[in-house]
Amino acid sequence: MKIAVLGGDGFVGWPTALHLSAKGHDVHIIDNLSRRWIDTELGVQSLTPMDSIQERTRIWHAETGRRIHFHLIDLARDYDVLKGWLAEHRPDAIVHFAEQRAAPYSMKTDRHKNYTVNNNVNATHNLLNAIVEIGIDPHLVHLGTMGVYGYSTIGAAIPEGYLPVGIETMDGDTVTQDILYPANPGSIYHMTKCLDQLLFQFYAKNDGLRITDLHQGIVWGTHTAETKLHPQLINRFDYDGDYGTVLNRFLIQAAIGHPLTVHGTGGQTRAFIHIQDSVRCIELALSDAPAKGDKVKIFNQMTETHRVRDLAEMIARMTGAKIAFLPNPRKEAAENELVVKNEQFLALGLEPITLAEGLLEEVVDVAKKFAYRVDRSRVPAVSAWTKDIAKTVETDPEGKRLKSVS
Amino acid sequence: MKIAVLGGDGFVGWPTALHLSAKGHDVHIIDNLSRRWIDTELGVQSLTPMDSIQERTRIWHAETGRRIHFHLIDLARDYDVLKGWLAEHRPDAIVHFAEQRAAPYSMKTDRHKNYTVNNNVNATHNLLNAIVEIGIDPHLVHLGTMGVYGYSTIGAAIPEGYLPVGIETMDGDTVTQDILYPANPGSIYHMTKCLDQLLFQFYAKNDGLRITDLHQGIVWGTHTAETKLHPQLINRFDYDGDYGTVLNRFLIQAAIGHPLTVHGTGGQTRAFIHIQDSVRCIELALSDAPAKGDKVKIFNQMTETHRVRDLAEMIARMTGAKIAFLPNPRKEAAENELVVKNEQFLALGLEPITLAEGLLEEVVDVAKKFAYRVDRSRVPAVSAWTKDIAKTVETDPEGKRLKSVS
Ligand SMILES: NC(=O)c1ccc[n+]([C@@H]2O[C@H](COP(=O)([O-])OP(=O)(O)OC[C@H]3O[C@@H](n4cnc5c(N)ncnc54)[C@H](O)[C@@H]3O)[C@@H](O)[C@H]2O)c1
Ligand SMILES: NC(=O)c1ccc[n+]([C@@H]2O[C@H](COP(=O)([O-])OP(=O)(O)OC[C@H]3O[C@@H](n4cnc5c(N)ncnc54)[C@H](O)[C@@H]3O)[C@@H](O)[C@H]2O)c1
Repeated sequence: MKIAVLGGDGFVGWPTALHLSAKGHDVHIIDNLSRRWIDTELGVQSLTPMDSIQERTRIWHAETGRRIHFHLIDLARDYDVLKGWLAEHRPDAIVHFAEQRAAPYSMKTDRHKNYTVNNNVNATHNLLNAIVEIGIDPHLVHLGTMGVYGYSTIGAAIPEGYLPVGIETMDGDTVTQDILYPANPGSIYHMTKCLDQLLFQFYAKNDGLRITDLHQGIVWGTHTAETKLHPQLINRFDYDGDYGTVLNRFLIQAAIGHPLTVHGTGGQTRAFIHIQDSVRCIELALSDAPAKGDKVKIFNQMTETHRVRDLAEMIARMTGAKIAFLPNPRKEAAENELVVKNEQFLALGLEPITLAEGLLEEVVDVAKKFAYRVDRSRVPAVSAWTKDIAKTVETDPEGKRLKSVS
Repeated sequence: MKIAVLGGDGFVGWPTALHLSAKGHDVHIIDNLSRRWIDTELGVQSLTPMDSIQERTRIWHAETGRRIHFHLIDLARDYDVLKGWLAEHRPDAIVHFAEQRAAPYSMKTDRHKNYTVNNNVNATHNLLNAIVEIGIDPHLVHLGTMGVYGYSTIGAAIPEGYLPVGIETMDGDTVTQDILYPANPGSIYHMTKCLDQLLFQFYAKNDGLRITDLHQGIVWGTHTAETKLHPQLINRFDYDGDYGTVLNRFLIQAAIGHPLTVHGTGGQTRAFIHIQDSVRCIELALSDAPAKGDKVKIFNQMTETHRVRDLAEMIARMTGAKIAFLPNPRKEAAENELVVKNEQFLALGLEPITLAEGLLEEVVDVAKKFAYRVDRSRVPAVSAWTKDIAKTVETDPEGKRLKSVS
C-alpha cells in the first residue's frame, strides 16, 4: 500500500514509518517539523541524540535499501499544498499523528492554547475536507487519546468508543442508540481530540469516509525492532515538564539521582502501551479498515493501567530512587479508577509487552546511557491548569518545592 | 449592565442590541461586518433596505437618546485586539452571535467549509481564552442551534441540553450521569456549534466560566418593538438560497408568484421562534445567570415545531401560492419527528408569538412591500451536501428543475 504518515517525524510517527516501510509499504512522511521548533522554543532536546529527518531517511535507505519519502507540509496552514499532494499521490491509507500532543504545553499560556486549538482542529479538518474535495477513498487512521473520556471516578469500564444508551420515545418505548462515549477532556489538548471525534463522525456520515480512531494510552519505551537497526535511527525521548510523560520523567529523575516527583497523591490511574505495541496496533488497524458507510471504528490502544504512585514505587524499587510528593499543577481528581476494554486489538493478535518486563531496558539502555545529556532544570512540570493553581505551584528544579520526601 | 453584543450587526444581534439598549443597558456591539461582505461575495442583499451599522446606531441615538457603541473587531483573527477590548471594558455580560450561521453556505465548497470551521471555532475559543487570561467574570450567553441534536427519527423529546444516562460500574451498580445530549450535526455549520459545546463544557469546568448556551430554532419574523421605531432601524431579511431560511424563501416565492419549493417530501420537522421572542429569551437568559462553578446552562430557545410541507400549505392558503417539490440538496432523513422541551423559558415568563398569528404581518408588511427588490435568481438553494447529491440537483431559478407542481 501507499501510506502517508502525517507527523512521521514524531515520537510515534517515526517508528511507525519505519515499521510500515519494513513491511513493504510505500511510505511517505508529511511533517512540518513543528515539534523540532517547539524543542527550540522551550530550550529542550530529546534525551536521545536525534538526527534530521532527511538524515534519518537516508540511513534507513542505506541500512535496508528501502526508501521513505519526506514532504515538508503544514497540514493546518497549507490546505492547498496538502490538497495538491493528495491529488497527486492518492495514498491508499493515511496515518494521522500530526497534532500538538502535550497537555501541559497546551495549558502554558493563552498563546499556547490558541496554537493547540488552531493547529489540531485545522490539521484534522483540512485533511478531511481535502479527501472529500479530491474524491479519493483512503483508509484514515487517526491517533486519539484515552484522555477524551476524561478520568471518571465512578469506576465503570471504558468501552471501545461507543456507549449504548436507552432513550425514551414519546410513545413510552425505549430505543437503544450507540453514542460516542461522553467526552470529558482534562486539558485543551485533550479537548482538541474530542473536537476531532465530532469531525470524524460528521465526515463518515455525510461523505462516507472510512475512518479508524485509536484512543491511545501513554506510550512508553524508546526502541522498536527497526529503530534498533542503527544508532542514527534512534527514536526521540522527551523528558521535559511539557512533553515528557510521567514515566519518562521518573526514569530520568532516577538516572540523575533526583527523587521521583509525584503530583498530588499519585492516585491518578493512567493507561499505558509500549512503543513497539503502538506501532504494531497501527499496522493491525490498517489491516482492518471499516467499509464505506460504516461509522467511525474506534479502538482503545492500551495494554495496562497503573496508578502514578505505583509506577513511582516500581521504578524506585529498580533504581533505589526516593519518591517526593508535590502539589498537582493539573486540575483533576486526586484519585481515579480506570478500567479500559481493549478486546479488539487482542482479538487481532496483539501480544502486549508489559511494563514489568520492559522497564529495566529503559532504565539501563536509555536513561542511564544518556543521563549525561540531561538538563535537570527542565524536568519539573511547570504549566499550571489555572491561575489559582499556578500560585500554589512554584517551580524549583532542585527540590525546594517538595512537600515531603519518602 | 454593560453588555457586549458580539455579532450585533446581524439578523438576531441587531434587534437584541436595540432591545437591551431600550431596557437601559450599556450596549457595545462588536462585529467584523463579515456578513455584509458575504452578501457582496454572493451578490445578494437583504430584502429590507439596510443601513450601515454606523448610521443605524446614529438613528437609534436620535430616536431614543440612547447610545449603542460599535467596535470593528474580528473575533476569530484579532485575538489581541479582542483581549485588549475586554480588558479595557470589562463587560458584565457578553452575548455571542458572531459566527457564520448558514448551513448551505458552510457546504458550498471546500473553501467555505474551512472558513466556517475556522471562523466559528476561533471566534468562540478566542473569546473564552481571553476571558480567562484577563481574569474577568462576565456571564457569557451564546447562541447555539437545535441542529446540534441532529434530526432524529426515533421520536424522543429533546431535553434542555442534558440527558441522564445510566452507566454500569465494575461492581455491577448503575450510576446515573448527566451527559451533553449526543451530538448529531447535519452540516459543517451545525458541527461547529457542537464543537462550541465542548469548548464551553471545558472552560466551565476548568476555569469556572459562567456560560449559558441557547439552542435556538429557526428564527422568523422581521420586526421587533424597537426596529419598528424608525424605517432605518429595520432588521435584515435574508431570502437567498444560502442565508434565507425555509420560511423566508416561501414568503418571497409567494410574493413574486413563484411556487413554494419544498425539498424532498417536506416531511422534515423543524423548530421555530419569532424574532421578538428570540430577543426576549436572550433578555430572560441574561437575568438568570449560572453561578461560578455550575455546569453550562442550556435552554432550548424555540416555541413551536412544524413540518416543512405544513408550512408551505399554511402560506399557500394565505397567499394562493402553489407548491412544488424539488430534489433535496441536503443529506438528511426524508421525514422526522421533532418534540422539544422548552419549559425553562416558559417558566421564566415567555409568552410565545405563534406563526398562525404573526405570519400575515410578514406576508403584507415585508414580503409584498419589498417584493420589488427581489432577485428571483437567488431564491433557490444551490449548495449540495455531497458531490453525488450535486449531480441530482441542478439549479434553475425559473422552475425547470421542478419535479411536480401541485
Ligand atoms: N506519545 C504519547 O504518549 C501519545 C499518547 C496518546 C496519543 N498520542 C497521539 O499520537 C500522535 C503522535 O504523538 P507523538 O508522541 O508522536 O507526538 P510528537 O509531537 O512527537 O509528533 C507529532 C508530529 O506531528 C508533527 N506536526 C504537528 N502539527 C503538524 C502540522 N500542522 N502539520 C504537519 N505536521 C505536524 C510534529 O512536527 C511532530 O513531528 C499525536 O496525535 C498524539 O496526540 C500520543
Ligand atoms: N437566524 C436563525 O434562524 C438562527 C437560528 C439558530 C441559531 N442562530 C444563531 O444565532 C446567531 C446569530 O444568527 P443571525 O441569524 O443573526 O446571523 P447573522 O449572520 O445575521 O449575524 C452574525 C453576525 O456575526 C458577525 N460575525 C461573524 N463572524 C464574526 C467574527 N469572526 N468576528 C466578529 N463578528 C463576526 C457577522 O458579521 C454578523 O453580523 C448565530 O450564531 C446563529 O448560529 C440563528
